[in-house]
Amino acid sequence: MDAFRTRVGGFAFGGDYNPEQWEPAVWQEDVRLMREAGVNAVSLGVFAWASLEPEPGTYEFGWLDDVMDLLHEHGISVNLATPTAAPPVWLTHLHPEVFPIMADGEPFGFGNRLHYDPSSPIYREYAARITTRLAERYSFHPALAMWHISNEYGPTAYNEAASVNFRRWLRRRYGDLDTLNEAWTTRFWGQLYTDWDQIEVPNIPRTWMNPARKLDFKRFTSDALLECYLAERDIVRSFRDDVPVMTNFMRFFRHADYWRWAQEEDAAALDIYPNPAEADSHVSAAFNYDLFRSLKGGQPWMLMEQSSSAVCQWKLNVVKEPGRMRLGSLQAVSRAADSVMFFQWRASRGGHERFHSAMLPHSGPGSRTFKEIVELGREMRLLAPVAGTTSRAEIAVLFDWDGWWGLEETHGLPRSDFSYTDTVMRHYTPLWERHHAVDMVSSGSSLDGYKVLVVPNAYLIGDEGAERIRAFARDGGTVVMSFFSGVVDDCNRVRPGGYPGAFRELIGAKIDEYWPARPHEVFTVRFADGRRATSTWWRDDLHLETGTALATYADGLLEGRAAVTENRYGAGRVVYVATLLEQAALDAVVLEAVESAGVRSRSEGVPAHVECSVRGDETYEYVFLLNHSAELGASVPLEGHGTDLLTGSPVSGHVELGPLGAAVVQRALP
Amino acid sequence: MDAFRTRVGGFAFGGDYNPEQWEPAVWQEDVRLMREAGVNAVSLGVFAWASLEPEPGTYEFGWLDDVMDLLHEHGISVNLATPTAAPPVWLTHLHPEVFPIMADGEPFGFGNRLHYDPSSPIYREYAARITTRLAERYSFHPALAMWHISNEYGPTAYNEAASVNFRRWLRRRYGDLDTLNEAWTTRFWGQLYTDWDQIEVPNIPRTWMNPARKLDFKRFTSDALLECYLAERDIVRSFRDDVPVMTNFMRFFRHADYWRWAQEEDAAALDIYPNPAEADSHVSAAFNYDLFRSLKGGQPWMLMEQSSSAVCQWKLNVVKEPGRMRLGSLQAVSRAADSVMFFQWRASRGGHERFHSAMLPHSGPGSRTFKEIVELGREMRLLAPVAGTTSRAEIAVLFDWDGWWGLEETHGLPRSDFSYTDTVMRHYTPLWERHHAVDMVSSGSSLDGYKVLVVPNAYLIGDEGAERIRAFARDGGTVVMSFFSGVVDDCNRVRPGGYPGAFRELIGAKIDEYWPARPHEVFTVRFADGRRATSTWWRDDLHLETGTALATYADGLLEGRAAVTENRYGAGRVVYVATLLEQAALDAVVLEAVESAGVRSRSEGVPAHVECSVRGDETYEYVFLLNHSAELGASVPLEGHGTDLLTGSPVSGHVELGPLGAAVVQRALP
Amino acid sequence: MDAFRTRVGGFAFGGDYNPEQWEPAVWQEDVRLMREAGVNAVSLGVFAWASLEPEPGTYEFGWLDDVMDLLHEHGISVNLATPTAAPPVWLTHLHPEVFPIMADGEPFGFGNRLHYDPSSPIYREYAARITTRLAERYSFHPALAMWHISNEYGPTAYNEAASVNFRRWLRRRYGDLDTLNEAWTTRFWGQLYTDWDQIEVPNIPRTWMNPARKLDFKRFTSDALLECYLAERDIVRSFRDDVPVMTNFMRFFRHADYWRWAQEEDAAALDIYPNPAEADSHVSAAFNYDLFRSLKGGQPWMLMEQSSSAVCQWKLNVVKEPGRMRLGSLQAVSRAADSVMFFQWRASRGGHERFHSAMLPHSGPGSRTFKEIVELGREMRLLAPVAGTTSRAEIAVLFDWDGWWGLEETHGLPRSDFSYTDTVMRHYTPLWERHHAVDMVSSGSSLDGYKVLVVPNAYLIGDEGAERIRAFARDGGTVVMSFFSGVVDDCNRVRPGGYPGAFRELIGAKIDEYWPARPHEVFTVRFADGRRATSTWWRDDLHLETGTALATYADGLLEGRAAVTENRYGAGRVVYVATLLEQAALDAVVLEAVESAGVRSRSEGVPAHVECSVRGDETYEYVFLLNHSAELGASVPLEGHGTDLLTGSPVSGHVELGPLGAAVVQRALP
Repeated sequence: MDAFRTRVGGFAFGGDYNPEQWEPAVWQEDVRLMREAGVNAVSLGVFAWASLEPEPGTYEFGWLDDVMDLLHEHGISVNLATPTAAPPVWLTHLHPEVFPIMADGEPFGFGNRLHYDPSSPIYREYAARITTRLAERYSFHPALAMWHISNEYGPTAYNEAASVNFRRWLRRRYGDLDTLNEAWTTRFWGQLYTDWDQIEVPNIPRTWMNPARKLDFKRFTSDALLECYLAERDIVRSFRDDVPVMTNFMRFFRHADYWRWAQEEDAAALDIYPNPAEADSHVSAAFNYDLFRSLKGGQPWMLMEQSSSAVCQWKLNVVKEPGRMRLGSLQAVSRAADSVMFFQWRASRGGHERFHSAMLPHSGPGSRTFKEIVELGREMRLLAPVAGTTSRAEIAVLFDWDGWWGLEETHGLPRSDFSYTDTVMRHYTPLWERHHAVDMVSSGSSLDGYKVLVVPNAYLIGDEGAERIRAFARDGGTVVMSFFSGVVDDCNRVRPGGYPGAFRELIGAKIDEYWPARPHEVFTVRFADGRRATSTWWRDDLHLETGTALATYADGLLEGRAAVTENRYGAGRVVYVATLLEQAALDAVVLEAVESAGVRSRSEGVPAHVECSVRGDETYEYVFLLNHSAELGASVPLEGHGTDLLTGSPVSGHVELGPLGAAVVQRALP
Repeated sequence: MDAFRTRVGGFAFGGDYNPEQWEPAVWQEDVRLMREAGVNAVSLGVFAWASLEPEPGTYEFGWLDDVMDLLHEHGISVNLATPTAAPPVWLTHLHPEVFPIMADGEPFGFGNRLHYDPSSPIYREYAARITTRLAERYSFHPALAMWHISNEYGPTAYNEAASVNFRRWLRRRYGDLDTLNEAWTTRFWGQLYTDWDQIEVPNIPRTWMNPARKLDFKRFTSDALLECYLAERDIVRSFRDDVPVMTNFMRFFRHADYWRWAQEEDAAALDIYPNPAEADSHVSAAFNYDLFRSLKGGQPWMLMEQSSSAVCQWKLNVVKEPGRMRLGSLQAVSRAADSVMFFQWRASRGGHERFHSAMLPHSGPGSRTFKEIVELGREMRLLAPVAGTTSRAEIAVLFDWDGWWGLEETHGLPRSDFSYTDTVMRHYTPLWERHHAVDMVSSGSSLDGYKVLVVPNAYLIGDEGAERIRAFARDGGTVVMSFFSGVVDDCNRVRPGGYPGAFRELIGAKIDEYWPARPHEVFTVRFADGRRATSTWWRDDLHLETGTALATYADGLLEGRAAVTENRYGAGRVVYVATLLEQAALDAVVLEAVESAGVRSRSEGVPAHVECSVRGDETYEYVFLLNHSAELGASVPLEGHGTDLLTGSPVSGHVELGPLGAAVVQRALP
Repeated sequence: MDAFRTRVGGFAFGGDYNPEQWEPAVWQEDVRLMREAGVNAVSLGVFAWASLEPEPGTYEFGWLDDVMDLLHEHGISVNLATPTAAPPVWLTHLHPEVFPIMADGEPFGFGNRLHYDPSSPIYREYAARITTRLAERYSFHPALAMWHISNEYGPTAYNEAASVNFRRWLRRRYGDLDTLNEAWTTRFWGQLYTDWDQIEVPNIPRTWMNPARKLDFKRFTSDALLECYLAERDIVRSFRDDVPVMTNFMRFFRHADYWRWAQEEDAAALDIYPNPAEADSHVSAAFNYDLFRSLKGGQPWMLMEQSSSAVCQWKLNVVKEPGRMRLGSLQAVSRAADSVMFFQWRASRGGHERFHSAMLPHSGPGSRTFKEIVELGREMRLLAPVAGTTSRAEIAVLFDWDGWWGLEETHGLPRSDFSYTDTVMRHYTPLWERHHAVDMVSSGSSLDGYKVLVVPNAYLIGDEGAERIRAFARDGGTVVMSFFSGVVDDCNRVRPGGYPGAFRELIGAKIDEYWPARPHEVFTVRFADGRRATSTWWRDDLHLETGTALATYADGLLEGRAAVTENRYGAGRVVYVATLLEQAALDAVVLEAVESAGVRSRSEGVPAHVECSVRGDETYEYVFLLNHSAELGASVPLEGHGTDLLTGSPVSGHVELGPLGAAVVQRALP
């Protein structure tokens, strides 16, 4: 990735480029305007399979040769895609069994993208063939700077081929059927398997379903997709192994365990479309940016797709008002993105996404959007010194796909409206608002170096993950954990010994029963210092053992019982929240824990509507100040002296920001 | 059933026991704790098919032998299940055509329970085989006290085998196609059948559908399920005919006509899960208890499944607060249940129902729930004299599956949001609130001995049923009937001669048109005594003939026209309610009719939040006083002298009840 | 049609007659009561296929012979149906592939009507055969007055036969695959077709879909249905070509382009069921009546089906209160209907529509409804002079199926909740309220003779249609156009050159971006004269070129920018509305444009609750005054002298109307 960064001179700036949709005359205008906008990299050929192989085994590479040459001539690097996200119609016409069967039993037909069963050997064979041809032809083309393997891996398929592959995956995981039967608790409802071939993908009973089977199918689906990625990655690497290889991930995407995937990528790459109609979409964007930085242990990541303005896939697609696109781009950079890329360069005339905004919109170079793109391109060049730097955090938040699936993809919980990402965001938000640097960790991540670990609603956690958390606390760390955590093992079986099986000693309390609240039921919680707050939705029926109450219920059937607790565990401290506190009260609990653990925000005095984050290296730190308010300005205090890279002006004591304004202050480290 | 009652020493107390989910070591703890809790009966092996016949024709009875012996050793009687509700995976793997095809055309796959087409000859053959093996082996085992045939019969299937069986059923019903064509009015929309093989299950056109065909398919589905039951029942009876046989029914279950089924059971048995989150779930529970007592003509029935606390199948599963489980159990007993059984004994670690509460929860013997179970077990022994007694009523409420299906399972009515059970509950509630004893009757039941018959919204009723109601009135009975009754015959054809064809003379009025109300439309109704009330939702355009108005509309296009009428019919009195009265006004109409008919509540002065019901025999009556309020106590006047069986204390004049408190007063009859 | 009109002596009055549902004895009562009611025409045999051909190739025409003779004897003309809307069960039993496959992949089974794939060659063969037999037998029967081809053509099918037919249709449209690929923009997402056989109906991916393919499939479906109609029409015409032929259309029916169909009919015929529960259903009824008059260039049309009171197909089916059915019938007549027909003559006892009201309801001849029918029949005879006359308008509203499909049947627009008919109605309503005569036009209609053209939300419009609108303005016409018009070509491709590609010069402004509003976002719009109004939902980001602002935004990010504009274009004037104005403000804009164009309402002083419209010929005009209020009367000023045909009384100066009252004033033209 260092070579890539050097090649593009800092940040990659550009977007998806689909020249096959246009006449060659347009290509000339494209490269001219790309240069005007400072574009230095494009993702090329993402959906070009049908244009490259219009009939089975017949290839048309001429146009791509021309485009590669043209881009190279103009100094634009190419992130060349394997086009396997869009199998040509001839493939599914010849082999309809490639179409993924959906959960409702019907195939997903032709007309969208991603119309393949990832377990299909036929799909994999054809995908390998076109990948090989591309790699043969372009591995050493001077424009090639990176491989973009397929696109937004995602399909879940219930085909017969998926069942075959699922069985193979289960054999690897469990070895024999006795182990599987035990893991899946198949004695319940008489579901014992006596032959591997009896196991099918869990396609039809849409509601009540063996929760371990459903969970394993989620894991399998992620792995089946990963197998597709690995096969193509290994092909391009077999030709040349010094070009970075990635695929583009998606925001809060539940069907692929990105912790596992990221190990196989040279860079984590994110497609993200924060909804301008949602007031706090920049907060969940920040979360995703932190996650993507964390996926590869702090390595700068790639913002691979975003929109210049409105998208077209929702029911309501609001534009980004002037300044919003630039601010969002800088926000990604502030959290260690090393690229700002868009879908797509030029707006399509037809097709499903004809109203998806582009760097060059239908209104052309005179449009507001293109002018903002040109200006952003200029700023990206000013920020070049920032590229390659990253950030460090003392706070970690557990974000775990297994836990997510346990909570949302299996039936029969005390209530069915858990939202793992909402819960995680509730815990992340106070940290974001106080400008704390935060990393995400999985249940398999090392926790070395962190002072605080936040564990939101870790219903399902394996033995190793649970022990890692306990060890972190034992060794002196502070853990903030919320209700309904540590309940089941990694087979979705309730841990024995009373709730919460994995964490009873850790939190110093046992739970007799889980008490989801009735609709509209509101409880009063009284903190030790007399503050009162409300809670809703859930209460653990908590019985203290070694723990003590930080807050108790002031009413209801659990009056006087603990609602928030703390426990000394080894050298550490564990704060446990047994109910859904109103946000302000949860904020206070989380921030108290963080501050007690000795973590200081580096951004005292920064107003709430200004986001502040820092990346840097041994020499410099870069303080990003981003004003998310479109109405208010801000005067932000800043210690020491520095230079705003966007203006080149020296900064000392204060930075003044207009509405939607931004500053990137470079400060030398001592 | 008397022998069974004697065997368990009064009430059966226990639950479903699934030892195949646990190691034998756990069984020892189970029986020890069962004894501690006073458990004297368990339902065994309900889902054990795969454990008993892990491969086709290979049986493993050893573990069941051990469990039967162990239970017998500890004095626990067994209600042994045929395990046919959960066909093993090998069966559907060998014969996928056994899977029921759902209304959407897709099969219901493996992973839940009840995954069989009841018409499948293959399913029936395998079910008969395992039933035979079980009966061979255990018919004379000393632990055996009852047979539990399969479980919660329910699937509706649209398979080819279902079509074949449907045709067979139709041939039996109609004899020839001309009769069927006439019954189904197939000349409408040109649907004449000319060959039996042209008739399919009504699977696909989800909306507009021949309403007689749809109705017959409901009847057929109930009968197809019943055939499955009968086949297994007859097998176990062929080995030994002195052991009671039952299957477990469900609360307000629309797919099986329990009147027809109950004739074939030795006891009516109910699974019921009143939702603790619903304020009045105990009222609809009371209705179901009365229904189950009525199904077999007043014979005590069995509460076969309930939960100790929360369930797990809903979107929100609230716990039963302390005392609620005991109160609900006593409520069932008060309405002639002779058992208090739970699903299930020990909470499962895995599987879909891992969060369904149990007698022995995950939190173990120290849990609140287990302690309450032990206490309830003790009380059940104190109540032993009550077992076997029953109650009598002078009021009957018509509750009829044919009528239900007519109203809710066929399209094209004046409005589509009829809820038969809601309507029935609106009529039952005033009777419940005034502590009246009430029986349910079907359109085929004898009405001898009743003074009042309540007929809620009997849209569809056959000729015999209609005549039975008319004869009841002619012979001096009081009928309370609500709108849109007597409209169609049992083929869902509008009765000729003007609305309401079956009851025009009975109510003494004709109806020109049915006038459903617009949304939000509210009417004023003025009673003869000047009281005013509102009504909504519906008005019959009623024209009085021999009847007179008890109330008229005070506004709207029907101003001055009758809204509630009475009619002298033979020696009887008929009160007819032609609109949806607000509840308080309907209460008054119903209670006036009851009182005018000379029916007295035996519980004058009992507060509204205390439920009062009575069961007894020739010697004693047992007055149950159940305080459903968790906040309020109550002082309940009680005539005469008695003994509270729960405390052993004498009672005279008054009974004092705390919140959720209960008393069961034994009084000697004169 | 003139011969038909002569034959029935003015207006056709009657309904669907389904004698096959009844015994012959009932037929005698039918004709007697028909005569009593003044019935002079019936639609016969619409669903009688199974009764006419109970087995393949076996015919039973005897009953139909009898009915035809009986009707003729009683002077009742027959609109004889080909019964092909209801294929007999034997047909689909022999050939299940005739069942249409629905969008969810499952066949639409037997039990409703219209259970055929219109592309099925088998269906077409059997339909041709029964049509031929009917035509052979009855073409010269004296009762025959008209042919009623099939019924309410409608099914959309996704069968293999539909794919085959779709390919044939596409070949005719595009000639070669290169042209198709270009038209469909298949280079987007790599959807290039290289063989015709690769093209399937767009059945499965339910959301994101190639928008040109989806659009063409809508066009194809309309045409495939039309092919079925044409085949049957041509058969009956081959026997005798002097009998009018029609099929019955439906209100706001989106699946058939009635402009194209109407060319092939001898009369446009409408089935319409205005919902009495909706306060303004008479306004959209008026729109449909105007549309049906316009479909064949002003020729009187046929009201072929309506209900006498409630229908049964909705969730809530409210009755028509006394007087409402008569008023609605006169409303159709006032807008040039030459018939008043009902579904159906006699209410069915069974079948799906047993609660659909009829001319002769279940309550029989003594019912309110039948009395109103008899009275209406009498009035229709009084109105005989009106039959055959029509009306003229100076205002045209564009109503175009292609535009409808573009807006609602393709995905990926800036927002997904467009309702074309709602938008059209928003523009039509002020014209209706001011009693303006309005015609509808398609994008292919001649605009000669109109002064004003209203173009609501013409998102998709072909080159010729766009040029026709521009020419209309250039030549001096006034155009009122609303936002998001002229965006894409007839292949659903964004027009190049900036938005709105087709109309940038016409409106004198370019649009940089489309700005859908956030939920609950409200904007203030200030008109040049100081009036203020609100707008919501949408804003064009409009940049004036030759146009000028009639109103500007007074707040928001577009403050000061144009919201409503006018532009001089050639000799004409173009008013453009760039946001969703509140209704009152839109009314003002539309009416100002109309008045400025010199169009005067002929009904000054008519109250808002009275509808006024006029039809006439060279000699007389007939002014219809219809009071839609059930509470208020009205005194309506009327110039000149005339005679109220309903009462025979002379009218001068004023007409007094009671609630729901009506007058039809005949006035001699100078």
